[in-house]
Amino acid sequence: MSLDAVLAKIDETLPEAMERLFGLLRIRSISTDPAFKAECAKAADWLANDLKWLGFDAAARPTPGHPMVVGHSKGDGPHLLFYGHYDVQPVDPLNLWHRDPFDPAIEDTPNGKVIRGRGSSDDKGQLMTFIEACRAWKAIHGKLPGNLTIFLEGEEESGSPSLIPFMKEHAAELTSDLALICDTSMVSPGVPSIASQLRGMLKDEFTITGPRIDLHSGHYGGPGLNPLREIARIVASFHDAETGRVAVEGFYDGVHEVPGALLKQWESCGFDEKEYLNSVGYSQAHGEKGYSTLVQQWARPTLEVNGMWGGYQGAGSKTVIPSEAHCKITCRLVGDMDPDDLREKIRAHVAARLSPDAKVTWDNDLEGSPAAVMNTNRPEFEAARKALSDEWNREAVFVGMGGSIPIAGFFKDILGMDAMLVGFANEDDAIHSPNEKYDVKSFHKGIRSWARILDALNW
Amino acid sequence: MSLDAVLAKIDETLPEAMERLFGLLRIRSISTDPAFKAECAKAADWLANDLKWLGFDAAARPTPGHPMVVGHSKGDGPHLLFYGHYDVQPVDPLNLWHRDPFDPAIEDTPNGKVIRGRGSSDDKGQLMTFIEACRAWKAIHGKLPGNLTIFLEGEEESGSPSLIPFMKEHAAELTSDLALICDTSMVSPGVPSIASQLRGMLKDEFTITGPRIDLHSGHYGGPGLNPLREIARIVASFHDAETGRVAVEGFYDGVHEVPGALLKQWESCGFDEKEYLNSVGYSQAHGEKGYSTLVQQWARPTLEVNGMWGGYQGAGSKTVIPSEAHCKITCRLVGDMDPDDLREKIRAHVAARLSPDAKVTWDNDLEGSPAAVMNTNRPEFEAARKALSDEWNREAVFVGMGGSIPIAGFFKDILGMDAMLVGFANEDDAIHSPNEKYDVKSFHKGIRSWARILDALNW
Repeated sequence: MSLDAVLAKIDETLPEAMERLFGLLRIRSISTDPAFKAECAKAADWLANDLKWLGFDAAARPTPGHPMVVGHSKGDGPHLLFYGHYDVQPVDPLNLWHRDPFDPAIEDTPNGKVIRGRGSSDDKGQLMTFIEACRAWKAIHGKLPGNLTIFLEGEEESGSPSLIPFMKEHAAELTSDLALICDTSMVSPGVPSIASQLRGMLKDEFTITGPRIDLHSGHYGGPGLNPLREIARIVASFHDAETGRVAVEGFYDGVHEVPGALLKQWESCGFDEKEYLNSVGYSQAHGEKGYSTLVQQWARPTLEVNGMWGGYQGAGSKTVIPSEAHCKITCRLVGDMDPDDLREKIRAHVAARLSPDAKVTWDNDLEGSPAAVMNTNRPEFEAARKALSDEWNREAVFVGMGGSIPIAGFFKDILGMDAMLVGFANEDDAIHSPNEKYDVKSFHKGIRSWARILDALNW
Repeated sequence: MSLDAVLAKIDETLPEAMERLFGLLRIRSISTDPAFKAECAKAADWLANDLKWLGFDAAARPTPGHPMVVGHSKGDGPHLLFYGHYDVQPVDPLNLWHRDPFDPAIEDTPNGKVIRGRGSSDDKGQLMTFIEACRAWKAIHGKLPGNLTIFLEGEEESGSPSLIPFMKEHAAELTSDLALICDTSMVSPGVPSIASQLRGMLKDEFTITGPRIDLHSGHYGGPGLNPLREIARIVASFHDAETGRVAVEGFYDGVHEVPGALLKQWESCGFDEKEYLNSVGYSQAHGEKGYSTLVQQWARPTLEVNGMWGGYQGAGSKTVIPSEAHCKITCRLVGDMDPDDLREKIRAHVAARLSPDAKVTWDNDLEGSPAAVMNTNRPEFEAARKALSDEWNREAVFVGMGGSIPIAGFFKDILGMDAMLVGFANEDDAIHSPNEKYDVKSFHKGIRSWARILDALNW
């Protein structure tokens, strides 16, 4: 009966839980931009203090980058580690937000009440579902769920440079029986989902230099190589216009087709392709011909351009041939694709297409991580699936994820831990976009879901 | 002998003339950026006051954009109008300047002393050569050169939106026997040059929109159309990689080959192609195969990309598919190319290549102007050629210009006036680029050249 009491407590204290979340959302913890370093530290302290107040032995631990928040609650039973991240994506283009990204509010929408603000879904709102479950648990049980470690990072949106060194240095402290991760979405609204495979990620950035200095296009236009034309030609060469496939030689090495049985499960998980595309302004699926949108998203690799720029961007016109042009790319990896190998293939593709007098330089500080497949045979997965099905009155499903959450692979590779990814975001949360939101229903039932899972995992 | 006295006066007062130029160079009159509107007004007032002090009936005249400076000196002889512009190009990328662009100084270089600063060559330094010639003239003659109008605009670097209306409204006041324009360069150092043909210009800008909002590349990468990939593909389609020719259908309508006799004159004017290319970091000529660099620059049309941008440009990485991508282009026009017709051809080229779900929008505020050929049969051209040859101890030449100075065409079309373009800039002045400079020799001998030309035109 104690579970019912915990769930009742969660229902009754929801307003206070949302107020607490707002406090965290007001902190501008954009990790990728050095200008917000102090705000990241502030978010780490906010969380460490909340955990301490809850009874965790917690602290914000300094790193060369942004702090890690680690909190322990000793006790009986299996040792579980919960992971989330308190950093958020940049907010540009700011003009497309209809409110200050860091002034969160509850808004009514045709699809119900939402919490609006940067990080509301990715990942502050999601990580707080777990912490609030612990809070309600303690209110009823008089103590925290036993033998639990909470591990929150502040560099997930900027490549987690400090994560692996920190995990290695504190391996004994962090190694647990299972990692719980709340940073994923539900395959469709109301369908509880456990992510069983994640795509990997490769980030790279290159600059093409032509003339030594910016030139006057009236003097050098024509006879002078223009880095903007050069980068356009090279970016255009990344894909085959006919098939939509990536045209980099060897790009698909290590990619496997989805087994028929898994494909069947995916097709029955309620994903609405038309709605998924129309909701953001697409009338049809683009990309690789012969693969459904869901399969492209979960099981096919991509090479995407995330930023490209050079020359004059100000008001009016400037008759310039710029000295430099820049391009940021990310690849999503599946199967056995090797990020380091792929990086070399992409760089070779660019080098082979450079015109005379064009030079390319690469940013060597950007990382990669392979795809990951979860060990769904562990009993905790069945227990969690049942707990989620009970909460949402709908059979929970194992799904793939288009996003990349390298942490799952790191837990496996560095600490030998399996991970279970349970998240309550929805595809329309606009994470990484203006007007990010998190459904109040996701927050509320997310907290309840964790309470059920903690209960099912036997304390 | 009075000419010798004027020339001696110029030599003796050169330091003061440079101090006056520095005062003008310190004013940040960037016309294309609305943030500098007040600075443009300040430059106009500075010039109007200097002209008044010199005895011109002068004023800064308001326009919907930046002011026009008009000064008259009534007298005998043919009515000459001198044109220059006091506005300058933007200074970005600022980090490539080795000093504040608006803190001018004399610097020693391997090629002699230079005046460093934005506008030193284009066009403040050049326009002051004429004003200083008038100043020395007055010091010797006790009066200004008779029947002279000075007409300075502040919108040359931003498309001169107010110029035509102003010329039409004040046609009677501005119409003269001949316009003198000092905004061009010498074909090679020490070779005095009179521009006999100018390329026209077409400016355009387009935005390609894909999804309604910025998207997460982990979710929509692949199945979602990416405007950055779209704009790269379209920009790449503007040129034929084999021939270097513009691939827009009908682009070359109205383009004529250079007559053999003129070509011979050009080839003998001392242009050093290798030096011209090597000086800015090119090892070879690019662009249209089968045409020399000089012919490409003076007599062939171009389509250049001056700015292209979209997505994330900040520090680190952002896994975004942006909603929009942007591109600024300019074309250089020759012969009988019609800017309005060409604009439609380029827009049709883009429209024909758009993918489903990609929308294009065009900036309709950008102007175009056709190419112009000067009436070199007028006696003033021969007189000026002789005066220049005397000053530079080298036969002056009639040359083409890669740049576009629409004003010459406007004088002809609106006021029925021929124009003569004499300038003292050098190709390595880095106009429109960081570290713009003007050779002290250009400034000094430029003033002397105008004194000789004014003398030759008989007052």
